Order: sequence, then structure tokens, then C-alpha cells
Amino acid sequence: MKFLNDDFLLDTPLAKKLFHDYAEKLPIIDYHSHVMPSMIAEDYKFKSITELWLGGDHYKWRLMRNCGIDENLITGKADDFSKFKAFASVMPLFIGNPMYVWCHLELKRYFGFDGALNADNAKEVYDLCNKKLNEQDFSVKNIIKKSNVEVLCTTDDPIDDLSYHKKIAADKEFGVKVLPTFRPDKALNIESGSFLSYIKELENASDMEITGILELIRALIVRLDYFTQNGCFISDHALTDYTYADCSDEDADLIVQKRLSGEEVTPAEAEMFKTYLLIALGEEYAKRDMTMQLHVSCLRNPNTVMFEKLGPDTGFDTINSSTQPVKLAKLLDELNKDDLLPKTIVYSLDPGDNRLIESIINAFQGSVPGKIQHGSAWWFNDSRFGMTEHFKALSEDSVLGNFIGMLTDSRSFVSYTRHEYFRRILCKFVSSLVENGEYPEDENALKTIVENVSYYNAKRYFGL
Amino acid sequence: MKFLNDDFLLDTPLAKKLFHDYAEKLPIIDYHSHVMPSMIAEDYKFKSITELWLGGDHYKWRLMRNCGIDENLITGKADDFSKFKAFASVMPLFIGNPMYVWCHLELKRYFGFDGALNADNAKEVYDLCNKKLNEQDFSVKNIIKKSNVEVLCTTDDPIDDLSYHKKIAADKEFGVKVLPTFRPDKALNIESGSFLSYIKELENASDMEITGILELIRALIVRLDYFTQNGCFISDHALTDYTYADCSDEDADLIVQKRLSGEEVTPAEAEMFKTYLLIALGEEYAKRDMTMQLHVSCLRNPNTVMFEKLGPDTGFDTINSSTQPVKLAKLLDELNKDDLLPKTIVYSLDPGDNRLIESIINAFQGSVPGKIQHGSAWWFNDSRFGMTEHFKALSEDSVLGNFIGMLTDSRSFVSYTRHEYFRRILCKFVSSLVENGEYPEDENALKTIVENVSYYNAKRYFGL
Amino acid sequence: MKFLNDDFLLDTPLAKKLFHDYAEKLPIIDYHSHVMPSMIAEDYKFKSITELWLGGDHYKWRLMRNCGIDENLITGKADDFSKFKAFASVMPLFIGNPMYVWCHLELKRYFGFDGALNADNAKEVYDLCNKKLNEQDFSVKNIIKKSNVEVLCTTDDPIDDLSYHKKIAADKEFGVKVLPTFRPDKALNIESGSFLSYIKELENASDMEITGILELIRALIVRLDYFTQNGCFISDHALTDYTYADCSDEDADLIVQKRLSGEEVTPAEAEMFKTYLLIALGEEYAKRDMTMQLHVSCLRNPNTVMFEKLGPDTGFDTINSSTQPVKLAKLLDELNKDDLLPKTIVYSLDPGDNRLIESIINAFQGSVPGKIQHGSAWWFNDSRFGMTEHFKALSEDSVLGNFIGMLTDSRSFVSYTRHEYFRRILCKFVSSLVENGEYPEDENALKTIVENVSYYNAKRYFGL
Repeated sequence: MKFLNDDFLLDTPLAKKLFHDYAEKLPIIDYHSHVMPSMIAEDYKFKSITELWLGGDHYKWRLMRNCGIDENLITGKADDFSKFKAFASVMPLFIGNPMYVWCHLELKRYFGFDGALNADNAKEVYDLCNKKLNEQDFSVKNIIKKSNVEVLCTTDDPIDDLSYHKKIAADKEFGVKVLPTFRPDKALNIESGSFLSYIKELENASDMEITGILELIRALIVRLDYFTQNGCFISDHALTDYTYADCSDEDADLIVQKRLSGEEVTPAEAEMFKTYLLIALGEEYAKRDMTMQLHVSCLRNPNTVMFEKLGPDTGFDTINSSTQPVKLAKLLDELNKDDLLPKTIVYSLDPGDNRLIESIINAFQGSVPGKIQHGSAWWFNDSRFGMTEHFKALSEDSVLGNFIGMLTDSRSFVSYTRHEYFRRILCKFVSSLVENGEYPEDENALKTIVENVSYYNAKRYFGL
Repeated sequence: MKFLNDDFLLDTPLAKKLFHDYAEKLPIIDYHSHVMPSMIAEDYKFKSITELWLGGDHYKWRLMRNCGIDENLITGKADDFSKFKAFASVMPLFIGNPMYVWCHLELKRYFGFDGALNADNAKEVYDLCNKKLNEQDFSVKNIIKKSNVEVLCTTDDPIDDLSYHKKIAADKEFGVKVLPTFRPDKALNIESGSFLSYIKELENASDMEITGILELIRALIVRLDYFTQNGCFISDHALTDYTYADCSDEDADLIVQKRLSGEEVTPAEAEMFKTYLLIALGEEYAKRDMTMQLHVSCLRNPNTVMFEKLGPDTGFDTINSSTQPVKLAKLLDELNKDDLLPKTIVYSLDPGDNRLIESIINAFQGSVPGKIQHGSAWWFNDSRFGMTEHFKALSEDSVLGNFIGMLTDSRSFVSYTRHEYFRRILCKFVSSLVENGEYPEDENALKTIVENVSYYNAKRYFGL
Repeated sequence: MKFLNDDFLLDTPLAKKLFHDYAEKLPIIDYHSHVMPSMIAEDYKFKSITELWLGGDHYKWRLMRNCGIDENLITGKADDFSKFKAFASVMPLFIGNPMYVWCHLELKRYFGFDGALNADNAKEVYDLCNKKLNEQDFSVKNIIKKSNVEVLCTTDDPIDDLSYHKKIAADKEFGVKVLPTFRPDKALNIESGSFLSYIKELENASDMEITGILELIRALIVRLDYFTQNGCFISDHALTDYTYADCSDEDADLIVQKRLSGEEVTPAEAEMFKTYLLIALGEEYAKRDMTMQLHVSCLRNPNTVMFEKLGPDTGFDTINSSTQPVKLAKLLDELNKDDLLPKTIVYSLDPGDNRLIESIINAFQGSVPGKIQHGSAWWFNDSRFGMTEHFKALSEDSVLGNFIGMLTDSRSFVSYTRHEYFRRILCKFVSSLVENGEYPEDENALKTIVENVSYYNAKRYFGL
């Protein structure tokens, strides 16, 4: 049985060696995740595998809907076992989907279940998992520790008081760094209906009044400094599309004042404002040697009916068709002109942008290895073929050896097996190049590449 | 000799088993084709392999032109053998083209010719094929029957009286269901010079006067009901680009009236009108539990000189560069808002849209498995790598196990071997996942997937 | 050790046979290159491997910047060995990058070095190469001759007096045809600040006054005729994006006069003018049976700081996001309407355009095999996966057997090993189709394909 055996995906002796001798045991730096810090601080314990797996995982909900399963069994009031069984019963259809591998790796690594989940064994697996989850060994902190996580970055709003992060840091026995990420999306989304109420919250959090662009930036810097005092070394921005439009100081101020007065702004004004604020923040990141993440080309909430029923992040977002990726070059150029281009990681949801992003980031390199990164295959691309296409673009149009590697981007505390999946695919890819005679069978050089991409590059890049 | 042998493309024991034990012998549901119902009704017999292969197959014409062959030998008045020989003589250059595999599979399966066609054996093959075509065994109905076709959907204009379909249905011995597809392109193409004359024809066919948008829709519904009475369960729309623009009832009516008065409409008005009519029709499909097909991103007739010489569908169409695929999300959302989103199959000619389409369709699933489908790799993508890329997107970003599978989209009565090609590639793909250890070697689960994608999913999806 | 051994990339007996028996020894027709004719005419000798490799190769500079190497060691005043060592020290990181294979193939084929370059052996390799470069055997002409080059096309401005080409042609012992390419980019870039000064130079070179569009075209034709008298058979155009906008004779004249008067033109006017001039020149190419090359979708100089420091062509250009590839169809259609569509080769920097380009070019074929070509994988795509994707599109949507094959597009005199790389990948690709049973193991047919794509198709296509 090859299914998820010790050597799965490792199709050559070299691939096996690289994975088992070097990649497998390295710690995890999970520099982008969506787990809730409160659950870590409180060392949460899950009631059931249904809560753990189906409580908030919109990847799974989405696949269940594809199978025509009633929403009551997905996000509704059906009982825990019914939901789990509904999911288990369609699992065999997910051949080739990363969800199939993810779930079974989790069952194997965390719960010791070695088979293939389906309707027939749903009850057995349900009971097995729930029994384990009931053990202290399966508290959130213990899961994280047994997953060999060294650093974990959550995703946080600038107004967050970071009390949970402080509480986690105070637990000296835990030993895992859980650090906040500065994600000021709500301050950038000036076209949003909730912008004004958010500004009020930001005023409170920063203890100052916001009357124009300068004050807005100052308030965000207050919060940024608070975040960095609490260990934050990375920011994040979600952009519906590549964003760039020239905007003077005066324009930025006028647009903010217009919006603060209660008026709506035009799409053109919104893009100008966002450009201005992205540049202003980017320069602050650069001054603090922080890293800026840009997540581009996601269309949020296209299904109106379900959005009104379930709200955001419930499995309905899609890839956006980006119109002008070269705007990315403009944004990086503006920051670079002021010699304040921070370390930057660019992710696009559209895999058609892969080579384009490689070409753009490499027009702005310098000072540190891989300063501008093409981030790990994101979301709909976080799959074997998706990652492999990313490796192809990365190695051919950039420098694979400088890649800072994998993150989970997950809401789940058992998703660290995705790092194992990534490392296997990396070792498979690297060994295929040797197999083809395009790179020497130099164990030391290969070890360096595999270890660096798995762990050391991120450690060095983020200055950990 | 591996060439098209029993196991070609089947590179593992598992792939061979899945194909030969399960996929190979299943009947064919060819739910999208362009064969002429008249030729079935009249049980046509082809005069020669030239007529069968080169009489109307613009795929072949296109490749011949690439080889610099004179148009006289393609669509001109050259004699049948000269045309066939011209085609045969360039065949060896088509390495890697699906045409190479298609032609040789047809020669092998239908005519018992086992070699590789070229200039040297052109005469031999010509004579062999013509002799067979002369036998009663090679009448159109007999070809279809020996191809193991169970259901065959032709493509038909709403004004068609479906007399040939009725005649075919009346032949109780034939046993193959030949059903019409409702394809109202001419009613949507309001910018076309022939729109007004088409409206006259539609008035005749529906026996009513068309003076505005309401009457236009009513007339189409009259025809739709006539089609469904004759077994139609599927519609089709060809769209040059993703289409969506808000349009009120009043706007739609004004645009129609403007056009009916003889004026031209602007591109913006045309898009508004098309959106309105697509939604109106989509809702009617939903009410009848029909399936809506959307074929997007084909640029028709870009070669003016040849269009004036030969007309449409002669081998000059190209992929269009789609501008805003997310308009697809808007269209589906509008239908969904009214709870009248029909089962829908989306095909794009641009393979760069693959992952984007998966992501959009999965924002609108529900009620039946795979309700919104990403249709089988279309036209320029109907090839080994094209289909494989489709499988990758489908399995990783959607649910391969719910895919309704292959169709021929062909004008040819011997193109059913494309289903064999598809099933081989499917078995190769599925077995590679097992080989990689990403799916268990569970014969029953694999059998289910392969059989469902080859046949049963379509049967269930269309309610056959 | 498989690394660059005799059979690297050749994974089947058939692949080995096709490469070693047929492809390997054929001469090279390098129909697109950027080497300097002066260096050939003067039979230049390189002072060191640093000059040869790092003197002007922006591919290498780009990768060094990705590694955070100081610009002083890239384009600055650091000494030759320091620069070479800096490059050597990051080489092991370039796994999977074509640069890794290119450099080591050059070291092996030209300098007899069989190992893997790194920091440790940098001095040894540096000394070895410099010793060889000092021998007469390594003069530019001798390098070209030992590379088995038969024809070499440089890239030249219409105002060039071609004195070096004449001098090379006068050397009867050299035996390699070095011919100019007509590349009138500066005459098309009407929006450029240097357009007016260029027009002055063109007036001088053509010995006529340029006062409007007609005179501009006439001046270019004077130069074109001068080029063809000196053996030129090919032109080249670099386009930032696909270019087409209707433009009447009057419009073209008005736009030129506006610009000549010192005014700037709008982007819309620039596109109109370029379209008009491209069509006018295309027709002249057709009349002379010349080939037109279109290089599309490169964004030049996006990094303002480095552009001001180092100028163009220094490693900062990127892929542009093309907006409307179908404009290519319009351009070809206009030329075709006048029956003056020349042989044309289209290259796009965006690999997402691959299938789209195949579909468009095949709407305009005729008269000679492969009249309109999808050019060899360009620049960022000139890599193993890049070329393989190109082969997939070419074989499935066009006719691989008619492909005119590889060019270096290089500034380097030792880049001819890229033809070897290309031919290996071609043989691997072709043999994989046989391995899959999709093409017969017919040695003669395969020999023809491999030899034609490697050499004979280009020879025939260009009428050499």
C-alpha cells in the first residue's frame, strides 16, 4: 500500500534521502496563519472532530456543497456526527484534491488512523478522534508543540489589543513564539460601508483624532509600533486586484476628508487612496525592517444569497481576474524610489500570474537574498500541481534556493501536516532535476537547498 | 509496437485495469455534438473517406493550411483522392496533435487499418475505407450503434421544426436517443446584421408577433416548450466574451425596440440585452430542470478574406482574450438570487481560465452533485495535455468524482473514439494519483470514480 | 553521475537515438541574436571569463541581485575575479534555472570543465577559462566556427551603415554568414523623447527629408533596401503590448506632423501610428519575401532608480500583462486583406498566451508550410519547462513538424549550447509521445521531424 506511506511522493532514492534525512525533522516557521490567538492563550480543547474539522473550515464546506449536501449538514444545526458522516461519505470523491491528502495526513499523524475515510468507517473514525481530542495531549498548545512549530504568526487587526498574544508570551513553558501580523485591511477599504465605524475604533485604539490622511497614517503608526513592541515582524494586505494609481498628498487628504464627511468615494478615488496608504505603510515597514505581504486577486463574497445568510469567509470567495499585474511594478518602484522598499512577499490567487510575478519581483531585488518573494502557492493553488507549477516558475525565473517556503494560511490547528506535504513535493521536484541531469548529485548542495527552503531561509529572512 | 495498442496511454497495471475492466465498455452519452440530424434520419451513407473526413471538418482544414497546402485541395474542387492524398501526405508532421490520434483511432476501430497513414499508403487506405463505407454496416445509424452511443444531443436553432428528430424517434429499431439542444444564439446576437430577419423567422415559428422584450422571451419559451416536448433537456449559448451588464426591464425593452426599428445598438446595449435574455432564459431552464451550457471566449471569423470566401465554421476561429471572467460570477449570482439558477456547464476556450472557472462555479453549488460544472476541455483544448490540465484543475479545485465527463462537440459520425481517448487519459490520471500515494489502491472507490465520470454521472445529472 | 552527461535529459533509448544520430550534429541557424557585429568583424578576444560572462549578460546580473550581492560586484568597479567569485558562490542556489545548465554546458563544451562551479573552485575555473580565452582558438570568429554556426542574424537599427557586416562578408575564409536584421523600433516609438533626434539620423541615413508619414515610410524603405542588399532577410519589432488601432492615411500623416512639430502624441495616437507603420512595413517585407518578427508584451525599465543608474537592458525588464491579444488577429487580418501578409514569427513574453497565439496564427496560414510561426519560447520562458509548454501548445494546437525552431536571442558568443539544450528537450518530448503510444516508432518519420525542427525548417523557411 503506497497510500501516505513513509515514502509517498518520493519517487527516487534521492528524494527519499533528502526528505527523511534533512527536510522531515526541521521545525516549522508558520509565518502566515489564521488561527485564533484566544484559543492558544486559553489552551482550548475541541469537543469533537466535527468542531475541529468542520467548525470553520470553508475549504471543506465548499467541497460538501459541490456534492449537493444540504446546508443543514454543513453550517446548519445538524448534530455533530451527522455532519461528520456527511463529510466522510463524499470523501472518496475528492481524489486528487489536497483536502483528501490533508485530512488523511491529519488522521494518520495526529490520530493514528491509517485507513481511508468513507461512509462505512465514519463512526469508527469519529469515535477514535473524539477520544483522542478528549486527552490533554490534544489541547491547542500541545497540538502546536507536537507539530514542531517554532514560530507562528496570527493575523490581526491594528486595533487589536494583543492581550492574548501577551498572555501566550507570558507562558514561559509553552516555548512557541506566537506573534501578531499587522493587517490593516479595514483602514484601506475606504469604499466599505463600515469604514467610518472602523475609523472610530482606530481613533480609540490609537488615542487620537483622525481628520485627514496624515492623522490616519499617524494612528496606524501608533498601532504598528504597538504591534512591533509585541514581536510583530510582518504585515499583510488583501487586495482585490493589483492596485496602483498616482495620488498626491493633497488628493489623499481630500479623499479621506470626503469619506469622513460621510460621502462615498469613486472606485478611482479608492484606488488612489489605497496606493497612497500602501506606500506610506510600506515605508514604515521598511524603516522597521519588517516584511510586507500582498495577497492579490481574490474576489470576496460573489454569492449574495449565501453572504447574507452566512457572512464572509464561508467558502464562496473566488479567484479574481486581475486586470493589470504591472501595477505591482509601479507600487514597488515608488517605494524603491524613496529607498524605502521593504522586504515584500507577493501572492496572487491567479496561477496565470506565476511567471509574471517572478519577472516583476526580480526587477526590484537587492540588499538581502530573495528580498522580494513570490509567496508560496496560495489557497486554490495550495495543492500538488499548484505547488509544482510554483516551483517551476520560481526555479526557472527566479532563485529557488532563496525561497522562504511554506505557510499554512489556515484556521486549523492540525494543518501543520501541510508543511510535510510541501517538503515532500519540494524533495520530489529537486530530485527530478538531478534525475534529469540538470543538477549534480551533490548531497551537500542539495541538503542546503532543501533545508533552507524548508526552514532556514524563513528564519534568516525574518531575522528570527 | 506501442502505437495505439490495447494499452496505449495506460502506463501502470492499475490504469490498464481501470480502463479495460470498467471504463472501456460503458455506453456513450454524447450530450454536445454538431452532427446533422437529417443525416441520421435519412441513415446517410458516405461516398468516400474524403467526404467523411474532409467534407466539413475544419480541424483538418486548419492543419492542412498550416502545411501550405493549396486551398483547392482543402475546400476547393480538387477530386476526392487528391484531397485525401494531400491530407495523408502531411499527416506524419502532426506528431502530438490530437488529430493524429483521432484519425488513427478511427482508422483502427472503424476500418481495421492498423498502420500509420502517409503519402505512400494513401491509396491503399483510401480504397480500404471507401470499400467499407460502401457496406450497409457503415450507414450513419449503424456507425452510431456500433459506437455504443446511448444518447446523442444535436445542436439546434429554436426555429427548427425538429422533423428529423421526430423521424428518428419514430424508428423504434434504432434504439439510440437523438435529442435536440436549444441554442438561441441568433436571438441573443442583437448586434448581428441578420437579427431582424431572424426575428421574422422566430415570429413564424412561434406564431406570434415580437414587438418588445416580453414578446421575444415569450416566443422563445413557446419554442423551448416545443423542444422539451421533443425530449430536449439541454440548452447552449455561445458567448464571445464573459457577459454581464445590469439591465432593467425597461432598458431591455427599449434596446429591443430600438433594434426592431432598424437602428443599430451599441456594444454596451448589446451586452445589457444579452445579460437580460440570458437570465430570463436561465430561469426558464431552471423551472424545467434543464441544463444550461455556456461556451465562452471564442473569436469568430477573424480572417476577413477567407470568411468572405468560405463563410463561418471553416477553420479560422480563434481563442478570444477574455477580459473579465468574474462577470460569470455576476451572471450566476443573479440567477441564484431568484432561486432559479439552472444546472450549468461552463466551457472557456482559454485554458488560462481553468482554475478561475473552478473557483467561480464552486461559489454556486448546491442541491445536486456537481450542479455547476466546468465542461470538458473544449476545442483547442480537447487534447491530451489540454484534458490533463483540465483534470488537474478539476481534481484540485473542485471534485473530480462529480464530473459529468466527455462529449465530442463534433460534426463527424466517427468521432466517438474521442470518448475512448478521454477515458484512457482519465484512467492514466487517476492511477498516477494512486501511484504517488495520494489515494488508496481501493479498487471499488476507483471503479466508482472512473465509471461515474465516463458514464453514470452524465446519466444521473441529466436525469436520463 | 548524470549531470550533463552524454545522455542528460534523454530518458529513453529512442530519445538518445534521435539526439545523437540526428539532431546533435546539425549546423545552427541562429536567426535572432544580439551579438555585436563589430566584435565579429574585429575577431575580438575576451580578456577574461568575467568579461565574457558578466560583461553584459543581464540574465546573470538579475540572479546575482536576487542573491543580495552588492551592485559593485555586478556592474560596478570590483575587480574581475571578485565579480566572478561572487557569481560562482551563488551558483549552487540556481537549481532548476536555465542559467545553471547554460553556464555548465558552456564550461564543459568550450572550456573542458566537467564539475559544478561554486565558491570553492571559483579560482581554478577562473584560471582555466582565462588561459583558454587567451588562445587564438577562442577569438570570436573561432568560437562561432567551432559552434557549428552556419547563419547568424544580428539585430540592427535601420540607420546602421552595416560596415561591420560588409567587413565580415569580405572575409572569405570565415565561412559563416553574418546578416543584419532590420529592427526599426526607434521609428515606431513616436511617444519617445528621442523620436525627433532619431528622425534626424534617419534623414541622414536615407538622404532625404522626413515631413510626414509618406516620407517616413519612404526613408525606411530606402534603408530596408540597403539592408536586403546586404543579405538581410528578416525584420524585428518589439511591442510593449499587442498593438492595433484603425488609422487612415490622413490620421497617420497628422500624427507624424504633430510629433515632428515638437508636440507629444496621446497613447491612442501612438497606437494608431504604430499600427499604420507596422502594416506599411509588413507589406514591404511581404513584397521582398522577408520574415517579420513581433516580440510582444515586455515592459521595459520598470525600476526607475536602476534605469537612471545603469540605462536599458541591464536586467530589470519584466513580462507585461497584455490586455488584448486578439489585436494580433486584427493586424494579421489587415495585412492579409491586401494579400501582403509576410511570413511572420510571433513571440510573447507571457506564457499564458501560448495557446491563444497558436489559435490566432493558424487563422492566417497558407502558401508555405508554417507561414505564421509561434516563435521559440522567449527570454523568461527559454527554459526546460518553458520550452516544453511551448512544444505542448505547438504540437496540440498547431503543427510541430513545421516549427522553425531555436534561436539564442543572446548577447553572448558562447550561448550556442542553448541549441543543444533545445534539441535535447525536443528529442525528449518527441520520444515521450512515442512512449505513450500516440505516435508510431517510425524512425524515418521521427528523424524528419527532429532534423527539420533543429535545422532544415529554418533553412527552407528563410530560403537559405
